[in-house]
Amino acid sequence: MEKINKSILSKVIKARNPESYKGNYGRILIIAGSLPFGGAAILSTSAAVHTGAGLVTVLTIPEKFTAMNTAVPEAMTLDYNDKEEMIDAIVKNNVIVVGPGLGTSPKTEEIIDTVIKNINPDTTVIMDASALTVAAEKSIDLTSIDKLILTPHQGEWARLSGLDIPEQTPDNNLSALNRIAPKAVLILKKHHSEIYSSEEVLQIDDGNPGMATGGMGDTLTGILAGFIGQFGFSLETISAGLYLHSYIADKINKTDYVVLPSKLISKIPKYMMKFSN
Amino acid sequence: MEKINKSILSKVIKARNPESYKGNYGRILIIAGSLPFGGAAILSTSAAVHTGAGLVTVLTIPEKFTAMNTAVPEAMTLDYNDKEEMIDAIVKNNVIVVGPGLGTSPKTEEIIDTVIKNINPDTTVIMDASALTVAAEKSIDLTSIDKLILTPHQGEWARLSGLDIPEQTPDNNLSALNRIAPKAVLILKKHHSEIYSSEEVLQIDDGNPGMATGGMGDTLTGILAGFIGQFGFSLETISAGLYLHSYIADKINKTDYVVLPSKLISKIPKYMMKFSN
Amino acid sequence: MEKINKSILSKVIKARNPESYKGNYGRILIIAGSLPFGGAAILSTSAAVHTGAGLVTVLTIPEKFTAMNTAVPEAMTLDYNDKEEMIDAIVKNNVIVVGPGLGTSPKTEEIIDTVIKNINPDTTVIMDASALTVAAEKSIDLTSIDKLILTPHQGEWARLSGLDIPEQTPDNNLSALNRIAPKAVLILKKHHSEIYSSEEVLQIDDGNPGMATGGMGDTLTGILAGFIGQFGFSLETISAGLYLHSYIADKINKTDYVVLPSKLISKIPKYMMKFSN
Amino acid sequence: MEKINKSILSKVIKARNPESYKGNYGRILIIAGSLPFGGAAILSTSAAVHTGAGLVTVLTIPEKFTAMNTAVPEAMTLDYNDKEEMIDAIVKNNVIVVGPGLGTSPKTEEIIDTVIKNINPDTTVIMDASALTVAAEKSIDLTSIDKLILTPHQGEWARLSGLDIPEQTPDNNLSALNRIAPKAVLILKKHHSEIYSSEEVLQIDDGNPGMATGGMGDTLTGILAGFIGQFGFSLETISAGLYLHSYIADKINKTDYVVLPSKLISKIPKYMMKFSN
Repeated sequence: MEKINKSILSKVIKARNPESYKGNYGRILIIAGSLPFGGAAILSTSAAVHTGAGLVTVLTIPEKFTAMNTAVPEAMTLDYNDKEEMIDAIVKNNVIVVGPGLGTSPKTEEIIDTVIKNINPDTTVIMDASALTVAAEKSIDLTSIDKLILTPHQGEWARLSGLDIPEQTPDNNLSALNRIAPKAVLILKKHHSEIYSSEEVLQIDDGNPGMATGGMGDTLTGILAGFIGQFGFSLETISAGLYLHSYIADKINKTDYVVLPSKLISKIPKYMMKFSN
Repeated sequence: MEKINKSILSKVIKARNPESYKGNYGRILIIAGSLPFGGAAILSTSAAVHTGAGLVTVLTIPEKFTAMNTAVPEAMTLDYNDKEEMIDAIVKNNVIVVGPGLGTSPKTEEIIDTVIKNINPDTTVIMDASALTVAAEKSIDLTSIDKLILTPHQGEWARLSGLDIPEQTPDNNLSALNRIAPKAVLILKKHHSEIYSSEEVLQIDDGNPGMATGGMGDTLTGILAGFIGQFGFSLETISAGLYLHSYIADKINKTDYVVLPSKLISKIPKYMMKFSN
Repeated sequence: MEKINKSILSKVIKARNPESYKGNYGRILIIAGSLPFGGAAILSTSAAVHTGAGLVTVLTIPEKFTAMNTAVPEAMTLDYNDKEEMIDAIVKNNVIVVGPGLGTSPKTEEIIDTVIKNINPDTTVIMDASALTVAAEKSIDLTSIDKLILTPHQGEWARLSGLDIPEQTPDNNLSALNRIAPKAVLILKKHHSEIYSSEEVLQIDDGNPGMATGGMGDTLTGILAGFIGQFGFSLETISAGLYLHSYIADKINKTDYVVLPSKLISKIPKYMMKFSN
Repeated sequence: MEKINKSILSKVIKARNPESYKGNYGRILIIAGSLPFGGAAILSTSAAVHTGAGLVTVLTIPEKFTAMNTAVPEAMTLDYNDKEEMIDAIVKNNVIVVGPGLGTSPKTEEIIDTVIKNINPDTTVIMDASALTVAAEKSIDLTSIDKLILTPHQGEWARLSGLDIPEQTPDNNLSALNRIAPKAVLILKKHHSEIYSSEEVLQIDDGNPGMATGGMGDTLTGILAGFIGQFGFSLETISAGLYLHSYIADKINKTDYVVLPSKLISKIPKYMMKFSN
């Protein structure tokens, strides 16, 4: 399994064209949050904004708008209970995160269905957390999405793939992915996370157990969305996003016992600049 | 086209008279925000407060009061759906920003009309974002406003002027401005933004593509409002506000890949002091 | 007129008794805030908490509880529209601030009346802003309050005293105070603020025009409340609170063009420690 | 009485196993907050998150969800007025804090009863503040909880034990604890706080009167919960949590007159790393 190392960052993070404008850096839609899980939406959205995503919209419930506006004034807020508003947002954005804090209610199934039916062929979909659980439970067909990223931890992957954790070997993972969504890229979050795709299987050696805390996965989705919005969908972009997440966490873990998502997010602009070319 | 340079800051930013009080530093009204765009109102208002504006009021919807109070406790909050309250606020303030996050609903047209009908002759109006789009769509007559600043990006200017981006040459821009609002000052936001007025055409060489992110334009409106409230309406004041915005962004961009509006705003008091005379 | 200088701080700010507990450091009630003026309540409350007040409660409207909890989690929140709750709070606390952001509605008159009728004889009342305006308009009799501090700026003092600003000489101020509330201490906020009492007339030379911004007066009320809660009601305590406010502002103004209340507040614990004896 | 010293920190704070995940670091439930006391819930929850607790849920009222999401996006929010949701949360979590900001309404009694009836035998319960007062008033039987920590200050302990403060000698405290809850650990918060258990009686010499401020006790509950979630229930873990709280407070008190809970919380990750082994 090939290792991803620091060089991926300078390869992917490009200096911006002086003539560019925010429309060039992605239109990101974060479909996230429910009454009990409002913070997940904030962390994913804030991470996308801090990577430099051009325009970030969160599709959530109105009860979360105030917290979102306060914590991330750079982002826009829409209501996923308004079907028309949801479809309109899905059509207009080119990177869509589905999952952080949605919970496993029937609403989540409806949201996934609406995304699948309405996205443009070129849109990237990042599925995380509850969306993965619901996709597994309801056997939702994901094969029609051309640019799909799945970001389960081992437990979520067990549900989705039917593979118990000890059975999650590279070969088994790859063939399960090939069955579930052959065009998708799978980020399997664990100690030394792995990336599976039809092209290649990759692994990172970075990361630390201080990251084992609530919200860390939500943060990753926002980083990935921001990277794809700016640098395009590719295995390299995805690898760089995953790598940056662990790289910053390792820097924080030198001084902090737990790596808090909000702190990791605040450091994204500096570490991206350090590796920008 | 003459270039604006750093010297404009020391020229405009005056040391304060020890005997002065907050009433001397402008009464700023920010008409901004709607259900999906609450953050824009926060950023514009916060920028005005951080420049040193004496009294800052935001006219928005009550759903945004809590986020506003939390993020900018220095500002007051009023409801633009209360017509009487709106008119009263328009009459009492001497610098009015219209646009950030208003959206393009009929309400925005009503707001623009109410501003035009009720402002004092000496009041400065800064029109941005949705207000420009609505003014273009509804062909609202802007010629009656004596002190008017328009802050479109190239796309908004295309809608307002009828000039496609390649046609936006200095001569065409100037004659379009002369037709739309001959007394107005136009800030055309782009790589190396330009200022058009009947007096002069100016350009800045500062600024960077890290500014290509949501909320950057909202922030500019607040800086301009704060500058005019304190230093008076003039081409120099406007140039200095525009310049400071890019100048701080360039400082941040030395270390940060993306220039986040909230970070830019937090640095305004220090950079203003540096150039205060 | 005697000058207050830095020595007042070490005189008043006492090192704490190791055996003490929060009940020893004052029970502060901040009656503040209304729909348009929510931030004033936050700034006053936050200032009181940052001085080290033992227990701080804000009596405001429920619409402001969320912003208050987010901005100042150390404080408790009660509703002044619940008469019983208001009376109970007035009885239980020993320092009461009335005014920041209350506005001039009939509610404010009712609140002042309720305070006057229900306070314990030993309770200190600090009246600021709208409360002063309403007291003037409604000719509310303030003579029954034994420990009263009035903190008007010159305009508010004009309304309360009937003295136009040029007439606000030390002699006139003192005799007006003697008529309005002979036992009260008056802080007249202006360039080089003055303190009037039956004992003495004092003045500070510190302070700067960067303080001429919304929320600065609200902040002072919180500092005064915290000081009295901890160091007792006296002319010295009041002088020290006023002095600290200007002293910190002067430090900030060395680097910041405008002195933002939120920044001033954040620095209170450090400057109090510096002068603690 | 044996003294707890700094060595307890390195003994308890273990370097994390690289192969671990957030489920290994505790499922913490904070039952806290009511309309007037929303901040207490924020401080307790935020403290638990900052110690590195794996998953933190706050069971409060929906009116506090927005402040909670904004201040601590890492935590989840549930409604204690939904009985089913409450029971489900009690069953699923293995460390439960009951008390901060609950107030002494009948609801608090109902919550304590529901916790006692539904916890797993292995779950730790930390009772603080209003929960202790209500337990005393209603003579709630606490003997059935195997892992129980009581964190009263001297006044709360007086109500619970029937011992007036001068009577609170080690012997009396121990026999009162033996009567009230023989398996429990008692943290008696005072100048040089004491820990009582059937095994041992301990005391800390750290801590300072700058901690005598609202919210400091709420913060302690969150630290204790996070420690037990990560390092297991034991007298050593409890001692380390109590010690860390005072240790950080002493560091802050070197420069700050009052030790603000929010500041103490922000420093937890650094001081835990310093002593991690």
